Amino acid sequence: MKKKYRHVAAVHSKPRTSCLSHDSEVSPSFLGFRNLMVIVLVVGNLRLMIENFKKYGVLICIRCHDYRRQDLILGAALYFIIPCHLFLAYVVELVAAQQARASLRAGKKRDGTATPGGSYIASDEERQKFQSTWITIAWIHGINVSLCLLITSMVVYFFIHHPLIGTLAEVHAVIVWLKTASYAFTNRDLRHAYLHPSSREEDALPEIYNECPYPNNITLGNLTYFWWAPTLVYQPVYPRTTRIRWVFVVKRMAEVFGLNAFMWIASAQYAAPVLRNSLDKMASLDLPSILERLMKLSTISLVIWLAGFFALFQSFLNALAEVMKFGDREFYTDWWNSPSVGVYWRTWNKPVYQFMKRHVFSPLIGRGWSSGAASIAVFVFSGVLHEILVGIPTHNIIGVAFIGMVAQLPLIAMTAPLEKMDGINGRIIGNCIFWISFTLIGQPLAALLYFFAWQAKYGTVSKQTVTA
Amino acid sequence: MKKKYRHVAAVHSKPRTSCLSHDSEVSPSFLGFRNLMVIVLVVGNLRLMIENFKKYGVLICIRCHDYRRQDLILGAALYFIIPCHLFLAYVVELVAAQQARASLRAGKKRDGTATPGGSYIASDEERQKFQSTWITIAWIHGINVSLCLLITSMVVYFFIHHPLIGTLAEVHAVIVWLKTASYAFTNRDLRHAYLHPSSREEDALPEIYNECPYPNNITLGNLTYFWWAPTLVYQPVYPRTTRIRWVFVVKRMAEVFGLNAFMWIASAQYAAPVLRNSLDKMASLDLPSILERLMKLSTISLVIWLAGFFALFQSFLNALAEVMKFGDREFYTDWWNSPSVGVYWRTWNKPVYQFMKRHVFSPLIGRGWSSGAASIAVFVFSGVLHEILVGIPTHNIIGVAFIGMVAQLPLIAMTAPLEKMDGINGRIIGNCIFWISFTLIGQPLAALLYFFAWQAKYGTVSKQTVTA
Repeated sequence: MKKKYRHVAAVHSKPRTSCLSHDSEVSPSFLGFRNLMVIVLVVGNLRLMIENFKKYGVLICIRCHDYRRQDLILGAALYFIIPCHLFLAYVVELVAAQQARASLRAGKKRDGTATPGGSYIASDEERQKFQSTWITIAWIHGINVSLCLLITSMVVYFFIHHPLIGTLAEVHAVIVWLKTASYAFTNRDLRHAYLHPSSREEDALPEIYNECPYPNNITLGNLTYFWWAPTLVYQPVYPRTTRIRWVFVVKRMAEVFGLNAFMWIASAQYAAPVLRNSLDKMASLDLPSILERLMKLSTISLVIWLAGFFALFQSFLNALAEVMKFGDREFYTDWWNSPSVGVYWRTWNKPVYQFMKRHVFSPLIGRGWSSGAASIAVFVFSGVLHEILVGIPTHNIIGVAFIGMVAQLPLIAMTAPLEKMDGINGRIIGNCIFWISFTLIGQPLAALLYFFAWQAKYGTVSKQTVTA
Repeated sequence: MKKKYRHVAAVHSKPRTSCLSHDSEVSPSFLGFRNLMVIVLVVGNLRLMIENFKKYGVLICIRCHDYRRQDLILGAALYFIIPCHLFLAYVVELVAAQQARASLRAGKKRDGTATPGGSYIASDEERQKFQSTWITIAWIHGINVSLCLLITSMVVYFFIHHPLIGTLAEVHAVIVWLKTASYAFTNRDLRHAYLHPSSREEDALPEIYNECPYPNNITLGNLTYFWWAPTLVYQPVYPRTTRIRWVFVVKRMAEVFGLNAFMWIASAQYAAPVLRNSLDKMASLDLPSILERLMKLSTISLVIWLAGFFALFQSFLNALAEVMKFGDREFYTDWWNSPSVGVYWRTWNKPVYQFMKRHVFSPLIGRGWSSGAASIAVFVFSGVLHEILVGIPTHNIIGVAFIGMVAQLPLIAMTAPLEKMDGINGRIIGNCIFWISFTLIGQPLAALLYFFAWQAKYGTVSKQTVTA
């Protein structure tokens, strides 16, 4: 049925509000603006890539890098020497375990009595003996593992010029240091529980350990598994998977390879020129220019950091866990939603967080420290490790990494109330503070300072000369 | 109760997956990355602002602008002349209404019979007479209003140099043109319904018009209301509010003022240098460089466009509606979520959309046109209007605005299937196509081409000289 009058329709037939007005009852969806943001980010960065290419051409160059022969030889030597200290720790534990076994047998013989269930009540004298033995063992372990870190650090600081090789060796030494510490502490407690069993429920060992009770876990196979397992925390028994999915491993390793290539290109083509161009601004302390450089650096350093995070924590550790049939793959949780700086540090790097919690924070609480004091201890310890990892390979122990870690403490204290705030606003503010403090200011500023110190000491690591 | 053994806790007690793995059952929230995107956008653009300031200094200058005396006088004259044509249209309708009244009286007298309810059946002769009268009226209206547009366009094209003053005069003339057309068409149908009432239900006039039946609506007051009302569609009666909230008006006008200042600063400080720097690239047809310029321009033109949209459609039209007690404030709906280009054109500018639908699209459908053909007619008509609005004030009728509008037709056809796609993906793809096509490519490219044509013809509009 055709309408006769087409020009008279009442377009405005009832009162309505504009959807962006406060009068409007329902607020509209803004999903389209999210899409727009993604597009603007992509376009903006594509444009910067074109600009960069026009300014510098291709800066990626495999042969230009200055890998000295000595660096490679020393790096390879360290790669084989460092794990040896883990096996020295094994020998120490083996002796301690044998001694414990002998002491238990001797005690049982001498007493002749055993409480029901085979448990045995230790005398004060015996407890003192355990403590003095432990001090000896702790000293041997400490000397062994710190010698490992010391040798590596000396070699890297004085003889390995290239920062990448130095960093790899240093990271390796720190990982072995942490693993050995965990191995020693865990076996100390296991040995104590073995020698002096307690019937108190809260002293019971985790059920999962029953499969391999002390001292059965002191074997070369068990230690080798811990050596390669993607964790810093020693357990006699780990949750395991039943089979290795090789397709999964290949995919993850392909990701590691691809992301590393990406990070290398991004560093050489985008980060390096920005760092180089900021040298004279750093030297003249031109603050607005340093801020501008920092902002330009922040995006690329953020992208590299995210790629590195994914490559290491998602791709590499998952591949390693799959090969090791290691069941617990929670190497991180959703740290990107952190409503505070504290939550970020508890979630982004679970292996280190678990080590710190089990072997530093929790024992200090057990000794009666307050949780604040124990947190300070954790971050100071972590700051020292960070300074070793960054300062030694770059031959500049300038303390920025240490200060960066310790500076997290006031930030954590400041943002902690935001976690508990009602509603979404507190969480969003906390999340923004976390992103700005860490990824936009912290990382690029530290990179800028170490790069500046490096250039002040050595000049460029590359044979290329680039004119801005 | 204190735990005895703090180094033995089973950190890895059960199999778990990494939350970014495909193995993971629930995918984590990515809200934190949305916050990061906002931060990166803000930081990236703050950086570009610092860069811009260091490169150009302050480019904003009130006295530098080249407003000729002649431009101002002619602009002011046009401002008062243009609405006169609306009142000429009123005189025409007044005469037509009186004639209709007389004809109805004469018809009733001659017939002596009237159908129940006072309605009256017209003869074929009378219908023909109505049609011929309408053709006369339509010609007078057409000549009157097109003369208005023609005079304005001639004055702007030949005598008003400054593009801003020219654009304002031209927009004013086009609005009056559209309002007069709506006034004439609506009153034609109302008059027909008055002279030849029909009992068919679908021919009934909207209920809201009963308050003021034809020819009571042909008064100077009624026309004056339509002249200022924020709509292009004439109705004898509009939904009205009961009172003016002056605080609301002041807030909206403050927004208009603030946003206009923002747009002016953004254009002078950010858009103008980019446009200037792209002139030699345009001249030499250096495609990668034009693309880079287009990308740089796209962000700032997008921001200016969004500010302009909000200033006009939210702030200004709401303020005007409040002052006019105009009830229907739906000047736009959530076009930013458009899943296709078609939805965008139907939602971003409701006044023009409503005019086109009521006075172009719907009547053509009534004449038996297909919906596709009617759409083509709408976009061709709209293209002509756009070319008049852009080409005449810039003194360059190069057809880009016309082509830009007509090019929407294939885009609409292409993205229409995405509207109906199941799931969210089709809508997101359609939304991205809309954003890219319109705000990232369409707008900046058109701006670049008209700016290039302008500069080729006149050189710079500003007395400042800027070196890149």
